[in-house]
Amino acid sequence: MSTQKPSRPKARLPRGFRDRSAGEIAAERAALDTIRRVYESYGFSPLETPAFEYTDALGKFLPDLDRPNEGVFSLKDDDDQWLSLRYDLTAPLARYVAENFQNLPKPFRRYQVGSVWRNEKPGPGRYREFTQFDADTVGSNSPAADAELLMMLADTLEALGLKRGEYVIKINSRKFLDTVLQGAFIPDMKRGTVLRAIDKFDRLGEGGVRQLLGSGRKDESGDFTKGAGLDDEQISIVMKLLISPDEFETNMYMDDLRTITKVLCENGYDKDRVTIDTSIIRGLDYYTGPVFEAQLTFPVKNEDGEEVVFGSVAGGGRYDDLVARFTGQQVPATGVSIGVSRLMSALMQRGIAGGELQPLVVILAIDDVSRSFEMARELRNAGVRAEAYVGTKKFGDQLKYADKRGAAIAVIEGSDELAKGEVTLKNLALGAELAKNIESRAAWVKDRPAQISVKRGDLVKEVRAMLAGVAS
Amino acid sequence: MSTQKPSRPKARLPRGFRDRSAGEIAAERAALDTIRRVYESYGFSPLETPAFEYTDALGKFLPDLDRPNEGVFSLKDDDDQWLSLRYDLTAPLARYVAENFQNLPKPFRRYQVGSVWRNEKPGPGRYREFTQFDADTVGSNSPAADAELLMMLADTLEALGLKRGEYVIKINSRKFLDTVLQGAFIPDMKRGTVLRAIDKFDRLGEGGVRQLLGSGRKDESGDFTKGAGLDDEQISIVMKLLISPDEFETNMYMDDLRTITKVLCENGYDKDRVTIDTSIIRGLDYYTGPVFEAQLTFPVKNEDGEEVVFGSVAGGGRYDDLVARFTGQQVPATGVSIGVSRLMSALMQRGIAGGELQPLVVILAIDDVSRSFEMARELRNAGVRAEAYVGTKKFGDQLKYADKRGAAIAVIEGSDELAKGEVTLKNLALGAELAKNIESRAAWVKDRPAQISVKRGDLVKEVRAMLAGVAS
Repeated sequence: MSTQKPSRPKARLPRGFRDRSAGEIAAERAALDTIRRVYESYGFSPLETPAFEYTDALGKFLPDLDRPNEGVFSLKDDDDQWLSLRYDLTAPLARYVAENFQNLPKPFRRYQVGSVWRNEKPGPGRYREFTQFDADTVGSNSPAADAELLMMLADTLEALGLKRGEYVIKINSRKFLDTVLQGAFIPDMKRGTVLRAIDKFDRLGEGGVRQLLGSGRKDESGDFTKGAGLDDEQISIVMKLLISPDEFETNMYMDDLRTITKVLCENGYDKDRVTIDTSIIRGLDYYTGPVFEAQLTFPVKNEDGEEVVFGSVAGGGRYDDLVARFTGQQVPATGVSIGVSRLMSALMQRGIAGGELQPLVVILAIDDVSRSFEMARELRNAGVRAEAYVGTKKFGDQLKYADKRGAAIAVIEGSDELAKGEVTLKNLALGAELAKNIESRAAWVKDRPAQISVKRGDLVKEVRAMLAGVAS
Repeated sequence: MSTQKPSRPKARLPRGFRDRSAGEIAAERAALDTIRRVYESYGFSPLETPAFEYTDALGKFLPDLDRPNEGVFSLKDDDDQWLSLRYDLTAPLARYVAENFQNLPKPFRRYQVGSVWRNEKPGPGRYREFTQFDADTVGSNSPAADAELLMMLADTLEALGLKRGEYVIKINSRKFLDTVLQGAFIPDMKRGTVLRAIDKFDRLGEGGVRQLLGSGRKDESGDFTKGAGLDDEQISIVMKLLISPDEFETNMYMDDLRTITKVLCENGYDKDRVTIDTSIIRGLDYYTGPVFEAQLTFPVKNEDGEEVVFGSVAGGGRYDDLVARFTGQQVPATGVSIGVSRLMSALMQRGIAGGELQPLVVILAIDDVSRSFEMARELRNAGVRAEAYVGTKKFGDQLKYADKRGAAIAVIEGSDELAKGEVTLKNLALGAELAKNIESRAAWVKDRPAQISVKRGDLVKEVRAMLAGVAS
């Protein structure tokens, strides 16, 4: 490892991946604990499946995005079988249920939180690894099972600090959509394009969707999206689906949705929280019946500084055929999945993300490191987060360190203090606050209002008092 | 998805991977919370890096195991760059530090917990995905930084419930080993074989190691391991290292180790907890100085029912050159890594793993599902984990369900109860206990001592009372 080595690798993150630091991790941990608490209170129990599954077991259910037939990270094992990293937590659950069916309680109710990977084109805010938090009920075809998941999802969003009215859960039915498309004699090969057009109703409105169902649409930037090429009658049926869905009220799959909303209403989850919306599609191909989407309704600023509605943070639906892929036997199943990263982004922007780390006390500049460790230990034993500085001896470096760590207090025991049996406490949080509000930093340094000397024996007591001041 | 489809995939876990269920997950979560609490109290802050790194950024530091030059899961990205899944959390940390060096506090202290993947030959109890919990101090060459990590590791093991004497942390120095091997004129190409032989001193003793250093060794099963082919003088120097290491006390790298143990002793971490052991190697190739290994000293039963000492649950060491691979500039660094899966196995066998899920109450057999949901909600709002059964209508299925879920209580509101404004509570935990201790199950069913009827309005109160009985 000589420094002249020509082939030195460049330190760089892989495209579409990211590092996450303390604040974000602490906030996410708090949110995951909240979700877990709600899910467990509903009787769901945790399950963990591995990152890898056999590629054939995962199946191909991702929507055709920018990379048709890809979307998944795959590699060949040394026994020539193909492995893929999971792209969601539902396909692995189906494998698990099929493999362990005899031994599972029916219905089987599990939650799972974990990373999923999608081999997609990276873009701003679009990552190839992200966290999902799923809950599923496998083995019940009752609409009550769907309704229960939606109540739990609403409870979860409120437990996370979102207020009534800041979210809405929209439901639709894939079977309903399919019968309408079949009724309009829309061929299977156009189904994907038509569904994608419907999915854009929220954003593009009636005119835009009409174009996408017909010959195509040119967007503001001049890019042209080819349309589904439907005829006028077909287009008018699809548009009726979006604009006056009540005309389809005799469709039997609308009954499923109405049963779900009836149970919800009886339980106090009214239309302001869960509502039927015939434009909801959900991308994954394995859904067979009701599909769900939780949307946040408040405006946020996008990357261009424009106000937009935040949109989807969770989705799901019924996938009655996924276990049958393995066993041939249908096992009805329904689930919801929270997109944790998107949700965290919403909670952050809303200022309601929790989970801060405790304030940190740093012990600086003590010649005898064991004296320093002892002070840190005393503080820790009293429940205070404390560390002894173990870097260079330069005092300037040490203060810079305490500052970069965002430490609340620095403890200093120089030779003067040692002789007097004292230590100096610098209130860094207060110091930083004062420095912001004072015209001349020099004047502040002279006054040092944020620094006191205390008896060594009073270290814990005085640090606690100073922290209490910081917190207040 | 017709059931006649001939190419139905088989539901099977990939080789070397596993599913984990509720009890194990809850226990691990409790242990991770404990480790996190100790690490944070020492001032370490969380960092998360992605599962993937560029292959060249990870480097090749895994020991040659059964698959030379492999050990890592790799695939080619669509821009022709090779990606690998991380095989530990240290190599990604080095990439992160090199990439963000200017903005980091020095020293940089982070902890990280996460899955790592090794593309190794799977075997019993040997998985290709496992969890590590690391803490590292980057940017300090002080032996105090090493000592602090070892104190923290000891505190962590005790916080997890292990007693003084049930664990020991052994330390050694790679530099010390290297100077001894160089002094014996052992060529670099034999270094790996010699280190692996030393590593087996614990298990094979003097005779076995001598054979591995010389011509080779045949084990009990008759398998032959080729030796390093050292001459007698070389062998006697290596054996001296293991049997009478004090003879090397003038070696300057022994001073490093003694400084570490001195700081530890001053802080009350005596030789019964941290001790120098010249047979400690650690497999990874990036260590440059002190290496550490935490071993559990109590006996456990292995797969063949034999009593063996549990052995290593954590390891680490100093890796001063890992950041310089990227930047050319040496950044001293030291870290410890807990093998969480092995640790959990020890805590389980010791009966000190925590983290049980709350007892579950299941609401069964109510025609009107909304009445059922309402009861579950009342219980949840009172802090009781409760779910409404959403499966089939058959009462037998329902009782089987409650049993398989390990529910503590089943709540039943049949038509009789409904008419009387009552509900029936079945104490399933007590019932199972009674069933074990009673000769005739029929007699038990007749007596039904574990079942009471209560007023619907007293549901929460009565369930709580019954749970309190269960818990006591």
